[in-house]
Amino acid sequence: MSLCKDHGIVSQGKIEYRMTVEHKKRLDGIKTYKPGKPIEEVKRELGLDSVIKLASNENPLGPSPRAIKAMADAAQQANRYPDGGCFYLRQALSEQLSVPGDNFVFGNGSDEIIVLAIRAFLELTDEVIIADPTFLIYRIASMVEGAKVKLVPLKDNKYDLDAMAEAISPATKMIFIANPDNPTGSYVTAGELDAFIKKVPDNVIVFIDEAYYEFATGGDYPETLDLIEKKDSNVIIARTFSKAYSLAGLRVGYGIMRSDIAKALNTVREPFNVNSIAQAAAVAALEDTEYLKKSVNLTNSEKERYYRKFDEMGIQYVLSKTNFILVNIERDSAKVFDYLLRRGVIIREMSAWGLKGFIRVNIGLPEENDMFFEVFEEAIKEIK
Amino acid sequence: MSLCKDHGIVSQGKIEYRMTVEHKKRLDGIKTYKPGKPIEEVKRELGLDSVIKLASNENPLGPSPRAIKAMADAAQQANRYPDGGCFYLRQALSEQLSVPGDNFVFGNGSDEIIVLAIRAFLELTDEVIIADPTFLIYRIASMVEGAKVKLVPLKDNKYDLDAMAEAISPATKMIFIANPDNPTGSYVTAGELDAFIKKVPDNVIVFIDEAYYEFATGGDYPETLDLIEKKDSNVIIARTFSKAYSLAGLRVGYGIMRSDIAKALNTVREPFNVNSIAQAAAVAALEDTEYLKKSVNLTNSEKERYYRKFDEMGIQYVLSKTNFILVNIERDSAKVFDYLLRRGVIIREMSAWGLKGFIRVNIGLPEENDMFFEVFEEAIKEIK
Repeated sequence: MSLCKDHGIVSQGKIEYRMTVEHKKRLDGIKTYKPGKPIEEVKRELGLDSVIKLASNENPLGPSPRAIKAMADAAQQANRYPDGGCFYLRQALSEQLSVPGDNFVFGNGSDEIIVLAIRAFLELTDEVIIADPTFLIYRIASMVEGAKVKLVPLKDNKYDLDAMAEAISPATKMIFIANPDNPTGSYVTAGELDAFIKKVPDNVIVFIDEAYYEFATGGDYPETLDLIEKKDSNVIIARTFSKAYSLAGLRVGYGIMRSDIAKALNTVREPFNVNSIAQAAAVAALEDTEYLKKSVNLTNSEKERYYRKFDEMGIQYVLSKTNFILVNIERDSAKVFDYLLRRGVIIREMSAWGLKGFIRVNIGLPEENDMFFEVFEEAIKEIK
Repeated sequence: MSLCKDHGIVSQGKIEYRMTVEHKKRLDGIKTYKPGKPIEEVKRELGLDSVIKLASNENPLGPSPRAIKAMADAAQQANRYPDGGCFYLRQALSEQLSVPGDNFVFGNGSDEIIVLAIRAFLELTDEVIIADPTFLIYRIASMVEGAKVKLVPLKDNKYDLDAMAEAISPATKMIFIANPDNPTGSYVTAGELDAFIKKVPDNVIVFIDEAYYEFATGGDYPETLDLIEKKDSNVIIARTFSKAYSLAGLRVGYGIMRSDIAKALNTVREPFNVNSIAQAAAVAALEDTEYLKKSVNLTNSEKERYYRKFDEMGIQYVLSKTNFILVNIERDSAKVFDYLLRRGVIIREMSAWGLKGFIRVNIGLPEENDMFFEVFEEAIKEIK
């Protein structure tokens, strides 16, 4: 029998020291992401026949018919592993965006691009700068990796880039910028982003999450692809097919970055991370530019109806560059959420983001929005 | 201007210290997984019209018609995020296996279960015990996480569990066992596994990868689900829908483990890691038990034809509990691979596994196997 004070004793052929296996201690402090409730779940739990979901910033039109056809075709070959290199999708995006193929990394949703970047770059001693509140995955994934998270509060519901630049320290390795932001829907302009990036040291990754790019592009919203070309600009741009392209269920997003950064992310990536049906559907969705326009136009015209309705009701909200609106209901958001849920309208209450008295609602089909207006007005009257 | 010797200087409002961002150094030493070539890629690159793939242990029958219908139906709602909890799939598996729902974790393929376990448990100071050769993802994912990998050679093309038990040290946190193994197709018996697990300390996870379970079950192959019940048995069992269930393209696998271990993996997991079409298809595939039987029966009868053909040719191979065979061709495997590829037959050459002079071929449809036999015989005659 051998004895080791630190690690335990060996007895009867079995090494005994700690009583049970220990997962990483830091996981205990992490609150996992709570998704919007699925329609099926609400129907099941509340016994409702008709439920509408305005909770997860999905495209209410459904996938493009061309994408649906591509999915059905690809289903026939689902016995085959996906192409780990996403050949056709890479080619299609490369042509559309005029970015060389080597600058892309594909993910199981753009969520995975966030995680891959974190896993490729963040050491235990590194610091990450994240706005508060913003998309929660940046914080959760950084905490899983064990990096130190430095939160910088929003200013007037918008990223405070000056304060984020001031927060940079020698330990800073990565900065996340959701542009437009979720859950506020606000955005930083081309001029603001440019000025910020000039202040960021060369050993820091700036991760720009453009999940809502297709709704936001135009005007003074920054076009960031040029940043990738510059050798000293450590920018990762993430985009997704989950929002305007209407393929959230399939999980496909991508990152655009310098090829040496892409190589690091691909080393961490599982070889078959993007399923074959998603690849086929994404190529078809990219080709269907009419459908994309229709989706963005519907969102924009219906968003105006939301603004008018909230104005009529005297309810405050944040002007949005996206397909959702953050609303300050100045009431118990859990109660309002629950009221709407029981009437078959799923929205998001924002307490998990630390926004008390706020809800987030995304733009649905016109008839879904009518339904929301009706039930929301009742809720606001009922709940004081 | 402030000056810091370790971290650099601040000048002109920009902190300057290291010239560029550094990814984790350990990533540079990692050789990424090289997948079997996709059929489309070989057609494209070699200008071939007809190509068969016997390289990735896929089910050649294609998905069950019920699964294909479920995929087409689910495609209509692909604009919605997947159910992050995999409610229906969890329920179906829970009933079929008589395992409580809390004991499951779902993954983007069972590959992801491997990665989640590693990310939940492995610290930089931990050691992992892995056979050599075996499925490469264990080693790659452990190296990405920064754990120390201890390789234990196979003995007569089979896991050497005695040597693996002897390799356990106080730093050991996880042991991977592919059962049946890939790429050998061999397996450890119920008695052997039982004896091994008795020797493993309580602070070590035994990860049993049963990707080929449906081909292997029966006889003295271990039925491991009982192990999950025991409080002191830190076993994670991984299974997949990619092989016998014929859904490799969709990426869906699962782990079965104690609920506290499941909780740790779920903390690391991205919230929408399993796409909605995969969930629907997996439920349908589980229900289609006839199709599963047909797949397994076809594999077994055709595998006998392979054995007979190799015996006739005097070619050595490893008896397999799976849908593939490791073949000792005693020739330059790259040359044989290339010969077959140019004739439109994709197989796997095993040099990446350190197996020189070996190929791996999976059981295809009868006509595909005929094609392989023909071209393989030619290759063996041509290449000395």
